[in-house]
Amino acid sequence: MENRTELSSLGEFKLIEVLNKDNVVENDSTLVAIGDDCAVLDYKDKKVLISTDTMAEGVHFDMVYTPLKHLGYKAAVSNFSDIYAMNGKPKQITISLSVSNRYSVEALQELYAGIRLACEKYGVDIVGGDTTSSMSGMVLTITVIGEGNADTIARRNTAKENDLICVTGDLGAAYAGLLVLQREKATWVADPNMQPDLDNYEYVLERQLKPEAGKWLIEFFEKNSIVPTSMIDISDGLASEILHICNDSNVGCEIYLDKLPIDYQTSRVLEEFKIAAETGALNGGEDYELLFTISQKDYEKIKDNADIHIIGYIAEKNAGCKLVTKQNTTIDIKAQGWNHYRDK
Amino acid sequence: MENRTELSSLGEFKLIEVLNKDNVVENDSTLVAIGDDCAVLDYKDKKVLISTDTMAEGVHFDMVYTPLKHLGYKAAVSNFSDIYAMNGKPKQITISLSVSNRYSVEALQELYAGIRLACEKYGVDIVGGDTTSSMSGMVLTITVIGEGNADTIARRNTAKENDLICVTGDLGAAYAGLLVLQREKATWVADPNMQPDLDNYEYVLERQLKPEAGKWLIEFFEKNSIVPTSMIDISDGLASEILHICNDSNVGCEIYLDKLPIDYQTSRVLEEFKIAAETGALNGGEDYELLFTISQKDYEKIKDNADIHIIGYIAEKNAGCKLVTKQNTTIDIKAQGWNHYRDK
Repeated sequence: MENRTELSSLGEFKLIEVLNKDNVVENDSTLVAIGDDCAVLDYKDKKVLISTDTMAEGVHFDMVYTPLKHLGYKAAVSNFSDIYAMNGKPKQITISLSVSNRYSVEALQELYAGIRLACEKYGVDIVGGDTTSSMSGMVLTITVIGEGNADTIARRNTAKENDLICVTGDLGAAYAGLLVLQREKATWVADPNMQPDLDNYEYVLERQLKPEAGKWLIEFFEKNSIVPTSMIDISDGLASEILHICNDSNVGCEIYLDKLPIDYQTSRVLEEFKIAAETGALNGGEDYELLFTISQKDYEKIKDNADIHIIGYIAEKNAGCKLVTKQNTTIDIKAQGWNHYRDK
Repeated sequence: MENRTELSSLGEFKLIEVLNKDNVVENDSTLVAIGDDCAVLDYKDKKVLISTDTMAEGVHFDMVYTPLKHLGYKAAVSNFSDIYAMNGKPKQITISLSVSNRYSVEALQELYAGIRLACEKYGVDIVGGDTTSSMSGMVLTITVIGEGNADTIARRNTAKENDLICVTGDLGAAYAGLLVLQREKATWVADPNMQPDLDNYEYVLERQLKPEAGKWLIEFFEKNSIVPTSMIDISDGLASEILHICNDSNVGCEIYLDKLPIDYQTSRVLEEFKIAAETGALNGGEDYELLFTISQKDYEKIKDNADIHIIGYIAEKNAGCKLVTKQNTTIDIKAQGWNHYRDK
């Protein structure tokens, strides 16, 4: 970046104006966006879905290898994903940003450009925000507001015995990308003249730095009159998420290890790090794929969609939550679940 | 606090469970609160109001003199205030908390107890939240969702010439309280054995540490069929807020300095600090009183309410925005407006 405008040179209101000047409002449900005490929305006969997510520097992202535009894009998309996970459509976001004066106005404009890019792609309006200083680093909180229909909202606690368990896309790629970035950072810290070698890692890096959310699936459901019996997005790893569904729905499950969708590049990268591909697919976070269950009667409607993979089925509660290996042995599913305070 | 449970001893899901176990859902519009990808709300024929506000340690609060329970209460109330400022009613909040492991689980429970106390008093449900670690300090973002009627929502940009300018309660008290706390902190830093002397400062300290929002005014408007022609809450000082209304409404104003409501204790404290009471009332922030305009036809309806003060009137744009002194001289209103990056 050639210019550097200090945050201190603008007041809070001017900063909000600069960051939001390129916003475009697209949704009918957005009556008032930025510029008053509140945004005003009109959801008519739709239910209102709300979710909020925070990303903190040094915890969720590392400024060494996270371009700010990508960070903004990912923060927005990961929030949209929570709305899709209820079988809804994201419509508005508010952005709360707490940053030290180490950042310039131009840096925040980059961040906003990434958020705006995601909003344009997914049809979402920016309707509010707050920018304050922090003692150190950056904390970015996005709250997303979306719409759902009373009779098609998908909960976590409504999976039924014999339902099919499905997952979109492929798993473990974002985690594989993170491992590559962490390795290149370590190399760079040891010798800042080293150029990172990122050839042949494009797919896993893109999945880590610029993930996408499951808009297409919600449109596919609508078009084909499918209502998933339960759904959740995969932000903390498949193992953790399927346990949420099973525990909340009071059921068990069987997941077939050899059915887990894993991209070739993901397998190859995980192998470099001596991690079994299935382990990465089960425990790697941040893929933002959707995990859902459907009634068996809907099997015909999904079986030809190459991006939907049936990986198991819902069992009765007493059967527990099991992984089934190729050798037909079973293992209890355990959530690794990330603990920021312990694992970092 | 006698017990100290480390944040690292709980996972993220367990922490969310511990913090939210005492939540009570009261509003019909809250269909699903915490425990799924999103909260689900039903606003039927009401408009949805959304606002978000962030408080950062070392910027908006100082842990030396801010009890965590008060911090939680104030963070919630300052958000409710944004909804009241649109003539709406707050119904739900989401809480995003980013904290270093310097804080214990018990400390966060204190913070939540304060948030919950405010929610109970104002009839608001906690419907979502995210707790993550941070590199240092605490950043607390609350997003509030409320309801308004299409024909009674009060904007900033709809004040009309000849409207009366009104303000609730009294001004400058929260700022006076802050000055006292900062002075006592400085004394304590110089000599940690000194006990703070806070007698005779109760009112201004309470206004700084545990402010209230204008629920009563919105109920008064409803009962008396008054729709303010514009409204804003006073978070950054009266001068800054009246300029927002005038600029956005494309009008001018006259404010009578001797009409500004100032509590006796506020005047006395500001005098100790050699600050003119009117200066504190004009520029002190965080009072969370409401500033609004009404049509002159509604004068009879408000004139006997002791908590509503008429402080001036809306003029044509070319007249500018003026303060009128007792001596009948006029001064241009200027917003001091707070700049976190410059003024701290």
